[in-house]
Amino acid sequence: MRVLLFGCGRVGRSFCELLSRKRNITASASISLVGVATRSRGCIYNPYGIDVDNLLKWEALTGRLDALLHEGGLILNDADEMLEDLDYDVLVECTPSDFELGEPARTIIKKALERGKHVVTANTGAMSLYYDELMEGSLQRGVSLLYEATVLSGTPLFSLVREGLPGCHVKRFEGILNGTCNYILSVMGMGSSFDEAMLEAQRRGLSEQNPWFDIDGLEAAAKTVIVAKSMMSLDIDIKQVSINGIRNVTMQNIEEAKRKGGKLKLVSRIEINSDGLDISVGPEILSLNHPLAYLEGFSIGALLLTDIIGEVCISGSSSGPKETAYSLLRDVLSIKRG
Amino acid sequence: MRVLLFGCGRVGRSFCELLSRKRNITASASISLVGVATRSRGCIYNPYGIDVDNLLKWEALTGRLDALLHEGGLILNDADEMLEDLDYDVLVECTPSDFELGEPARTIIKKALERGKHVVTANTGAMSLYYDELMEGSLQRGVSLLYEATVLSGTPLFSLVREGLPGCHVKRFEGILNGTCNYILSVMGMGSSFDEAMLEAQRRGLSEQNPWFDIDGLEAAAKTVIVAKSMMSLDIDIKQVSINGIRNVTMQNIEEAKRKGGKLKLVSRIEINSDGLDISVGPEILSLNHPLAYLEGFSIGALLLTDIIGEVCISGSSSGPKETAYSLLRDVLSIKRG
Repeated sequence: MRVLLFGCGRVGRSFCELLSRKRNITASASISLVGVATRSRGCIYNPYGIDVDNLLKWEALTGRLDALLHEGGLILNDADEMLEDLDYDVLVECTPSDFELGEPARTIIKKALERGKHVVTANTGAMSLYYDELMEGSLQRGVSLLYEATVLSGTPLFSLVREGLPGCHVKRFEGILNGTCNYILSVMGMGSSFDEAMLEAQRRGLSEQNPWFDIDGLEAAAKTVIVAKSMMSLDIDIKQVSINGIRNVTMQNIEEAKRKGGKLKLVSRIEINSDGLDISVGPEILSLNHPLAYLEGFSIGALLLTDIIGEVCISGSSSGPKETAYSLLRDVLSIKRG
Repeated sequence: MRVLLFGCGRVGRSFCELLSRKRNITASASISLVGVATRSRGCIYNPYGIDVDNLLKWEALTGRLDALLHEGGLILNDADEMLEDLDYDVLVECTPSDFELGEPARTIIKKALERGKHVVTANTGAMSLYYDELMEGSLQRGVSLLYEATVLSGTPLFSLVREGLPGCHVKRFEGILNGTCNYILSVMGMGSSFDEAMLEAQRRGLSEQNPWFDIDGLEAAAKTVIVAKSMMSLDIDIKQVSINGIRNVTMQNIEEAKRKGGKLKLVSRIEINSDGLDISVGPEILSLNHPLAYLEGFSIGALLLTDIIGEVCISGSSSGPKETAYSLLRDVLSIKRG
């Protein structure tokens, strides 16, 4: 299974590191990285497989991905040309999420699907905006489009539902999906102001892009849309999500939650009730015996109400680039298994 | 995929009810029940598939499983003969767990494996005592032996690790694996004595067999052994597990846990530390921010520390026969998918 990696920021680099670290797994599954395509830091292709350790070493030294000249790989000038002309089995798409247009990921994914290539993506923006179009594209070509990395970072949610809950109908979903917001609310819970907590989150480097996409709930809403479409087959649009971020959360709000015996969390909620569909992202007070209430810091989680076995809760203690990269690898392994 | 059900107590009956309720799933996966074998309530076999609704109706009326004469199925006298002579693809083994000898499940499973049949079992006793022998048998014949129902009831644990955490090394395991003990401790947490809580648990009908296997921690220990072998490849025996049950837990212990800001739970623990292997089942005070501390009543859960993505926690709100039966169905579907 020859992998072309498109985009090599923190998640892409973590993916390469994981390929190196878990060499026994990738070797036994015959997974090899044949290309890395970036738009500003060079492109490299080697049909026999790139030495990932060397790639990372030279990238660290030069900031470029095409510094591996001595390895005999092809150096290319155009990332899109690689996508369209070179040979690979699965595209791993890691470009930054755009929550307004979904580009360039949408176009990149479409091009790969049109060539009959499998696609694995971490792109929450593109998947939330173009889920139907992209899934349709994968179905038409009979290839896989997997997107575990778009929600819950490294913690398996879609694979849990696919393999662990077959035949179950998910009737309600609650999630803490944005690690940055959860971190900020946790720090505020220990007595810091919003601004202090925000600075602390930035120091921890968790917001690569515009942090307001996180803070204002848009990133969580995009994830909620993907869940609604993928797990609950709902035909909805992000415009239908009632979105409230945490920008205006005050110490008073945090204290009020404590007084009420709970914790303030940014909760994604999807519920079909007698009034119709309730799909929202917003601060909620979760009582301390709520399965998601104990999630602190960058941990994330989801609670599913199923028709067969009641509630199932899954959570993970971390949600950084390394964990997200693991979901990309899981999806590649899943395609390999068929 | 033709299913032979061996044993039809509460889990077996729930399995039949699930086949009926989720007819769309079983039909699309071509799963049909061709036989039910019991040692005291009759046996029935129909190679074209048994009408499960009729089976359940007549079983409710007569207490017998061979009351479906008018359907034209074969009525047999001997459960073992069915296992050894009749045609089926997968055995679903649901006889009561025996924690000392693992019988009759061990022999039943072996016979099916020797005939090259896939096996799905809910038998914690047999799997904890004969895991190596039975897995070896399945490998030799190139068939599947799945046992999701033996631990965490309906909540997927082994499938989570298999499909959701490929390549991850589980470094530590903590679990609340026995729903009955968790229920008793929860009721005690609300002010009841052990005896009152025990009676309440029995009223709720959760202990089919000798309740002391639950109370004294043996059932949780058997589950812990299966986890240790299956998820952590440890070569251990139940005799190596340090087992303390909840028989002697007092109101004072519960109050002490509260004073210390935590909850008393029966915790299964597997950890490899500098002193070697620590594998135990016993009452522990979990602090309120422990991911398993919020589990109340019959809920169950597990916390895995992995080498790649840190901690992953999965839990379920219920652990009765219905949920256990769902794990059997999940395993059958998983074998069908291949």
